[in-house]
Amino acid sequence: MKNEFILNFTPTGMIPTKEMTPHVPISVSEIVEDVHKASEIGITMVHLHARDAVTEEPTYKKEVYAQIVEGVRKYAPELVVCLSLSGRNFGELDQRSDPLLLDGNLKPDMGSLTLSSLNFNKTASVNAPDMIADLARIMKERGIVPELEAFDIGMINYAKYLERKKLIEPPYYFNLLFGNIACSQANLLHAGVMINDLPDNSLWSVAGIGNEQFKMNSLSLAFGGGVRVGLEDNIWYDTARTKLATNSELLKRVHVIAEANERVLMTPKRFRKLMNLAEGNGAYGRP
Amino acid sequence: MKNEFILNFTPTGMIPTKEMTPHVPISVSEIVEDVHKASEIGITMVHLHARDAVTEEPTYKKEVYAQIVEGVRKYAPELVVCLSLSGRNFGELDQRSDPLLLDGNLKPDMGSLTLSSLNFNKTASVNAPDMIADLARIMKERGIVPELEAFDIGMINYAKYLERKKLIEPPYYFNLLFGNIACSQANLLHAGVMINDLPDNSLWSVAGIGNEQFKMNSLSLAFGGGVRVGLEDNIWYDTARTKLATNSELLKRVHVIAEANERVLMTPKRFRKLMNLAEGNGAYGRP
Repeated sequence: MKNEFILNFTPTGMIPTKEMTPHVPISVSEIVEDVHKASEIGITMVHLHARDAVTEEPTYKKEVYAQIVEGVRKYAPELVVCLSLSGRNFGELDQRSDPLLLDGNLKPDMGSLTLSSLNFNKTASVNAPDMIADLARIMKERGIVPELEAFDIGMINYAKYLERKKLIEPPYYFNLLFGNIACSQANLLHAGVMINDLPDNSLWSVAGIGNEQFKMNSLSLAFGGGVRVGLEDNIWYDTARTKLATNSELLKRVHVIAEANERVLMTPKRFRKLMNLAEGNGAYGRP
Repeated sequence: MKNEFILNFTPTGMIPTKEMTPHVPISVSEIVEDVHKASEIGITMVHLHARDAVTEEPTYKKEVYAQIVEGVRKYAPELVVCLSLSGRNFGELDQRSDPLLLDGNLKPDMGSLTLSSLNFNKTASVNAPDMIADLARIMKERGIVPELEAFDIGMINYAKYLERKKLIEPPYYFNLLFGNIACSQANLLHAGVMINDLPDNSLWSVAGIGNEQFKMNSLSLAFGGGVRVGLEDNIWYDTARTKLATNSELLKRVHVIAEANERVLMTPKRFRKLMNLAEGNGAYGRP
């Protein structure tokens, strides 16, 4: 049996700007082009954030997401598409759930679901219990699968609570994120506890923030997990921060380590099957 | 050398009402009486929340805290007094810092400082980075020592960040709280990681929520830590929930386990010395 790994590509995020790095894709066409290149290098899924093309500020608007999804699926109709429902900048349910309203060929397969409130470096990201329940409920109704985002050990316990309340259903996909200042750190004890705590029937990827990105990606490739990688989490190619990375360079380095660890890319088609997602090519989400 | 333990008494909190249990002290005189009784049983410090006497709702007002502190210190002038600065119900800095303005004989020795945003069962508790920094700065300026509250592993990392930014200074006192649904759980792995992660020069107590209270208190007494106990965290005497507890009963049970573990109560005087607090009896906080 092949030892497959999930490669979750995060090209943009909410923080990097053109001033920070010329390589971050901001406009619809830039994001589409980076995902297209990534598909040729080899990825399983993409985690998309939309930006206002002029101000570069994050936007929740489904109209912007629609253009990105349309462009991505033109080149890669099977790729698993996950849209961010982040509450870092937007507080209302109708803002955060807006991308979930897309339909037909524009319907996302997945939507991100952060499993508690937390602090980032400079801001609080508020995800109150009712908001989490409402987003989970809308996703379940619309056959969109949550990308469960856990920044600390308690958030995995909260996923188990959502399971008991039947707000989420297996199989699950988790991003485990390490290295935010007020969250679990990029060390072996924290990673060991979080991976150990995952519910049965979970697929998972590991992300590290900033200089921790590649360390955590390597750990996960060595220990059977997937990888979340891209300029969203880290704009540098080296930890000395002498060279700004491109998304393609980050992806290629993941493939080098994966190959050395005898890991094979999980295709979007295979991931769709494991996650009970429709086959792509016009049919998206969980039927 | 005596193997001393800190007993941090939490009589009231923000949640229990008279309808839930007749034993929870709500009015100023009830709280003062429970602390007085607790002092006779033996405690090191008290973690106080104030309530509106009529509505039973939590209040941040220094005028209410002033009456409680005055009453407590009449009977126990050495007891280390910590006031809650919780953001669960109040969002503004001038509300949350109001109890820190008390002076002279009413000045608190300590104020609670939750080290990130988090979710409780039904609500988010928002403690954004700026709020944490502002509360820490006011406490430092006024010689009030933070009671560092960690609900998950990332919050201990954040204390180390505050130390690097010189917003807090050793020696430290931590409450490690286990068993909230979206936070670290009452199990040995989570407790082991959190205790292991504490900064040098930290004293600490362990709290468990609901049925986890006594389990976590016992773990801490066996492994060299202190105890946070009281109706704030748990209103039941037994895990089958057949008998509502009184604060005195919870405290007496802690003393039984402590004695069996060869632990001796740390006196307020000794705790003041270890934490560089003034001696009490009219001089409070860190000089």
